[in-house]
Amino acid sequence: MIAKMGATVVCGGLGEVMAAVARGARAAGGATIGIVPGESRADANPWIEHVVVTGMGHARNLAVAASGDAVIAVGGGYGTLAEIAYARILGRPVVVLGPGWDLGREGIERAATPEEAVDLAVRLAGEADRRRLH
Amino acid sequence: MIAKMGATVVCGGLGEVMAAVARGARAAGGATIGIVPGESRADANPWIEHVVVTGMGHARNLAVAASGDAVIAVGGGYGTLAEIAYARILGRPVVVLGPGWDLGREGIERAATPEEAVDLAVRLAGEADRRRLH
Amino acid sequence: MIAKMGATVVCGGLGEVMAAVARGARAAGGATIGIVPGESRADANPWIEHVVVTGMGHARNLAVAASGDAVIAVGGGYGTLAEIAYARILGRPVVVLGPGWDLGREGIERAATPEEAVDLAVRLAGEADRRRLH
Amino acid sequence: MIAKMGATVVCGGLGEVMAAVARGARAAGGATIGIVPGESRADANPWIEHVVVTGMGHARNLAVAASGDAVIAVGGGYGTLAEIAYARILGRPVVVLGPGWDLGREGIERAATPEEAVDLAVRLAGEADRRRLH
Repeated sequence: MIAKMGATVVCGGLGEVMAAVARGARAAGGATIGIVPGESRADANPWIEHVVVTGMGHARNLAVAASGDAVIAVGGGYGTLAEIAYARILGRPVVVLGPGWDLGREGIERAATPEEAVDLAVRLAGEADRRRLH
Repeated sequence: MIAKMGATVVCGGLGEVMAAVARGARAAGGATIGIVPGESRADANPWIEHVVVTGMGHARNLAVAASGDAVIAVGGGYGTLAEIAYARILGRPVVVLGPGWDLGREGIERAATPEEAVDLAVRLAGEADRRRLH
Repeated sequence: MIAKMGATVVCGGLGEVMAAVARGARAAGGATIGIVPGESRADANPWIEHVVVTGMGHARNLAVAASGDAVIAVGGGYGTLAEIAYARILGRPVVVLGPGWDLGREGIERAATPEEAVDLAVRLAGEADRRRLH
Repeated sequence: MIAKMGATVVCGGLGEVMAAVARGARAAGGATIGIVPGESRADANPWIEHVVVTGMGHARNLAVAASGDAVIAVGGGYGTLAEIAYARILGRPVVVLGPGWDLGREGIERAATPEEAVDLAVRLAGEADRRRLH
């Protein structure tokens, strides 16, 4: 869905949710960027078109959050929590999809379905953009 | 209290909670380390004995969390949330003092008073240490 | 030339050499990735197709060097020197184009023209790849 | 010698030169800070009094260079070269002790003996400090 809207998927580049979203985006002809923690391009999953190798371990979560116009958070892992925290520090809007980190703070919206999450993310990214420009 | 137990205070080195804890530790004759985000030692508050200048912005939160045997989280800021997330990724025990981020997860304890927070942190750090060694 | 060989340009995303190489690659229809030090996508030059926002200041030089299969170093700046150093720490081959950092070490080749630099970089990247796989 | 002048040794915290300088400083009663690349305090050599755990791999070289008022570079390794580059980016004076990276640039002095290196580093750090303050 992200790909169909002409947007680029940026993620941590490894497995699980990061692989699932990249696989979906590639299947839809979209661009995918994976920002991996290790020192090798081979760490990325096969659906990452552009691998950014940071060599900085979990600090790469800052780059993942900072590189998005909006952040869609999936799952209850602590890496995801760090990315939510960084997104909010930097003023990026956050959409939490499904169960996971329900922090109940301003700037963090909930979505029940992927459709709703992508719609919200695109809309909130646009609003953040307008706030920045005006 | 941390200083009186012979432990070192590691924090982000800037103002507010970071300044208050460093001031207290110095007053008690303790060592303080401040890991600042910018590129200048002058960014640190006056109670930081050893300034580590990272030049890495908010990525320095990883180093703050990683450098502790246990993490005491004070306040509801997103920088604190990033440090809690990193502490748990790395297996450091977390004690949340007062209101703030009550995430309700294993490895994160609550404390009502500073005394309780320091006692808990020292005990949990010892347990984490024993788990690592055995 | 990099774009015409089907390779992707990865650079620091800002001005001068970083802008010149991105402009050339885009004109040839190639992909460009800019890994910027600040916290905003707006920092990137207009010829960067994919902006990776690190928020990590000069530490992003590690990611720039690590993300390439080979590194072409242009100019005598200290940021370039840091990238050469990181490339060699990580085993990436380095080609120095024109005047600049002539360190005279194994793994660092000199090129007199852009054509020679790209040819060398592609060949050395292939050799490094074969060494890694065998 | 650094310790005897009342200055603190900051280094990468691991073996070889980093261990030798920390051992010497501790023997003279000085403070030592080791900024390690991995995720564990146990990575530091035994003469590090204060371990800063970055979890950021080679990106920690930026913090090592940035945390000094002056940088004394020993040996010809690429990690040392990255630290020289970062020191100069940030305006820290550099003293190269013995053989190693003789880059022949302004802001990088040579020293033949440890005595000369420490004298130069302390003097240059003071000059840099005065430039910053005036």
